Amino acid sequence: MPYQLYYWDGLQGRGEFVRLALEYSGAKYVDVARTESGMKDMLKILASKTEPRIPFAPPFLKDGDLIIPHAANILFYLGPKLGLAPSEDSLRYVANGLQLTITDMVAEVHDTHHPIATGLYYEDQKPEAKARAGDFISHRIPKFFTYFERVLTRNAGKHIIGDALSYVDLSLFQLYEGLRYAFPRATRNFPKDYEALSALHAAIKRRKPIADYLKSNRRLPFNESGIFRHYPELDQEP
Amino acid sequence: MPYQLYYWDGLQGRGEFVRLALEYSGAKYVDVARTESGMKDMLKILASKTEPRIPFAPPFLKDGDLIIPHAANILFYLGPKLGLAPSEDSLRYVANGLQLTITDMVAEVHDTHHPIATGLYYEDQKPEAKARAGDFISHRIPKFFTYFERVLTRNAGKHIIGDALSYVDLSLFQLYEGLRYAFPRATRNFPKDYEALSALHAAIKRRKPIADYLKSNRRLPFNESGIFRHYPELDQEP
Repeated sequence: MPYQLYYWDGLQGRGEFVRLALEYSGAKYVDVARTESGMKDMLKILASKTEPRIPFAPPFLKDGDLIIPHAANILFYLGPKLGLAPSEDSLRYVANGLQLTITDMVAEVHDTHHPIATGLYYEDQKPEAKARAGDFISHRIPKFFTYFERVLTRNAGKHIIGDALSYVDLSLFQLYEGLRYAFPRATRNFPKDYEALSALHAAIKRRKPIADYLKSNRRLPFNESGIFRHYPELDQEP
Repeated sequence: MPYQLYYWDGLQGRGEFVRLALEYSGAKYVDVARTESGMKDMLKILASKTEPRIPFAPPFLKDGDLIIPHAANILFYLGPKLGLAPSEDSLRYVANGLQLTITDMVAEVHDTHHPIATGLYYEDQKPEAKARAGDFISHRIPKFFTYFERVLTRNAGKHIIGDALSYVDLSLFQLYEGLRYAFPRATRNFPKDYEALSALHAAIKRRKPIADYLKSNRRLPFNESGIFRHYPELDQEP
């Protein structure tokens, strides 16, 4: 049975980190909310009165009867099955640690446009968003990216963990791509400042399953409903 | 060799979720940063030029040579070893999904006093903190706690997952305790609004290893350096 991925239609969002792993490995999966009546199915699970283990929010994965929520958790689960996790068991926790650091950075990206309330529009929190984005660009991007660059370089530069491509590398690709989209000015020195990460990003972009996926209509473009949003007024020089 | 837990001294913080699991199970561990020169040891690892897999931030656990960062990841790793995870393998991912939902809520608690910049003082972002805390109290606490109450009730009310106490229950205890400390007004209807969670919280507080730990000097009191901070001006009626 194909994996069933549940995530909001219309945006890449947190589901995209899972999609990239599924696409790269050529796994059979259904992107449920993008099928007819799929959105209804997803909402039905979230509101279910019988399902014993309801997720808090998408994304979640169904593998048979098992429902697994949270992007990092789904990837921890899928990694070994897709051949995208370190073969050594203990290293999988190191991979998960890296993935959770990516998760934290993604949450901070979200908060650059929603610093006060997720339930309000960006337009209702623009001055606060400007302040938070400024701090994110000045302090948080360098802190996270210097860290990832350091780990990558220390691991010989081709993969962030182990000696082969893992789901964490694919997630770093997406993080890099998303930041370039959202903050083109703030990230314009990425190739110079983060050489190893930039090389990794470029290498993944060229890999055939990813190149094919990015050209397909399964890859939605970045947009201002997702996590990585391009609001020119939030962008600034690094 | 005892587990070595690395976390900032002087506050409960994210390290506390790990401590509760270690304490409950009676595991041998060293709270490294609270030993003499331990803080220096921790900073040395974070700045290491030789360690191949440096964590981004505390908390992290050392088990022999293995370094595992992120509270949820540490608990995923320790859970089965401490007898605090579901015995069924697939359920461990469900437990991790719940723990990551707790992680998300904890990050939102942190942002009630630091909505703009982690690097600035609370005093430098008070109006924004007031707005964010207001939204957290009105919308986010009910959303998360209604969810946890629902999962707990559907699992027969005594444990959030499986048929025995797990590290997720201990983390829910801490989350409940921390929110009661930070927002006594906002949470005053907890016993009525969240009966199952309140019963779970009370039951865990009475368990001998936890009761003993809470009385010991290993348990630091909540304070305004941690994640759960009591600033009366941020608290309000539910």
